[in-house]
Amino acid sequence: MITHFDQESLLATDSIFRRNLINCLAGYKSLNLIGTISPDGKTNLAPFSQVFHIGASPPLVGILFRPHTVKRDTLENILATGVFTLNHVTSEFYKEAHWTSARWENSEFEETGISEEYLSDFKAPFVKHSPLKLACSLVETQTLKINQTVLVIGSIDHIFVEDKGLRGDGSLDLNALDTVTVSGLDEYHIGEKLGRLGYAKPNQEIVEI
Amino acid sequence: MITHFDQESLLATDSIFRRNLINCLAGYKSLNLIGTISPDGKTNLAPFSQVFHIGASPPLVGILFRPHTVKRDTLENILATGVFTLNHVTSEFYKEAHWTSARWENSEFEETGISEEYLSDFKAPFVKHSPLKLACSLVETQTLKINQTVLVIGSIDHIFVEDKGLRGDGSLDLNALDTVTVSGLDEYHIGEKLGRLGYAKPNQEIVEI
Repeated sequence: MITHFDQESLLATDSIFRRNLINCLAGYKSLNLIGTISPDGKTNLAPFSQVFHIGASPPLVGILFRPHTVKRDTLENILATGVFTLNHVTSEFYKEAHWTSARWENSEFEETGISEEYLSDFKAPFVKHSPLKLACSLVETQTLKINQTVLVIGSIDHIFVEDKGLRGDGSLDLNALDTVTVSGLDEYHIGEKLGRLGYAKPNQEIVEI
Repeated sequence: MITHFDQESLLATDSIFRRNLINCLAGYKSLNLIGTISPDGKTNLAPFSQVFHIGASPPLVGILFRPHTVKRDTLENILATGVFTLNHVTSEFYKEAHWTSARWENSEFEETGISEEYLSDFKAPFVKHSPLKLACSLVETQTLKINQTVLVIGSIDHIFVEDKGLRGDGSLDLNALDTVTVSGLDEYHIGEKLGRLGYAKPNQEIVEI
């Protein structure tokens, strides 16, 4: 059986139902902890599921911040200092990662027990036990007219990756890294590989590689 | 052991290595087949991993199109007709979904054997066997100055979801829907749930819900 919502019936659902549903629609989302530091030296750590690829040359990432629903410390720190880190979450600490979304007074690193570290003289803190860490510098921000969502674009200055997840062709084995993915606002999963597929050509059957 | 790339050593890697790596950095990505139709009635179907949530009221999705690396038919059809569909991919047809990325002369629906259907008089084609289908209308586009990436924002006009995946609180059980996630350019996974976690509060241990 299929359930059908048109825009009218969707807007007639209660706001929690609608928020849960809309947040699930795209499918599985990437999960990263963003590490920042305020101008007066207080560190911050927060989970984000809206990090994506913008370009490879130069290497760029984008993050979408929704002003009305997301805590603003991360965005304010990025705008003030120009730097942030992205850190994959593993099944070992996904609950602590979720806990960083609480409204803590002090640094989420101290409060949730996630260890911070500093690498290559980069100013923003990394998550010590993350198997994939990126150091990024703010390049530009763009505000979407339609609802004041803020798109932050950052350049990738450093990549730190555990060797067990880095293949010879540059691709990452996310299963080996134990990277976690999120659906909706609060549900966490690991990936189970179905297959890696060769470059698709017309009239040539798809092969696993 | 950890491998470290700074921007210089990253840019010194060969372009395929770098493209593979950069495309994997965010982690697991959502996977949707976008269905469109040209003004003269030719249907098109293409896989996208850059679909994300922009807002719940009104319900909005965003798609990032990178002009230099992605086939343009989908974007051109959306700009010409103002409509598109988003369709989750399952483990049953992820190879056919990958195959739609080949440079077909005719409609990818005909060529790859993925069945199309039309629902609620919506002009763009849906993927018949997808467990989650969205009908979307173009609201606005924005071009990123930094590299001419095009952000398409669409309103969600219809949602069709199989009941086995729709929970009472509006969230989706993506494991039950058999939704597939992608890493990098060519690797497909299903999700295996670790847990769903309650709203995070300071000084209160995280509980599964």
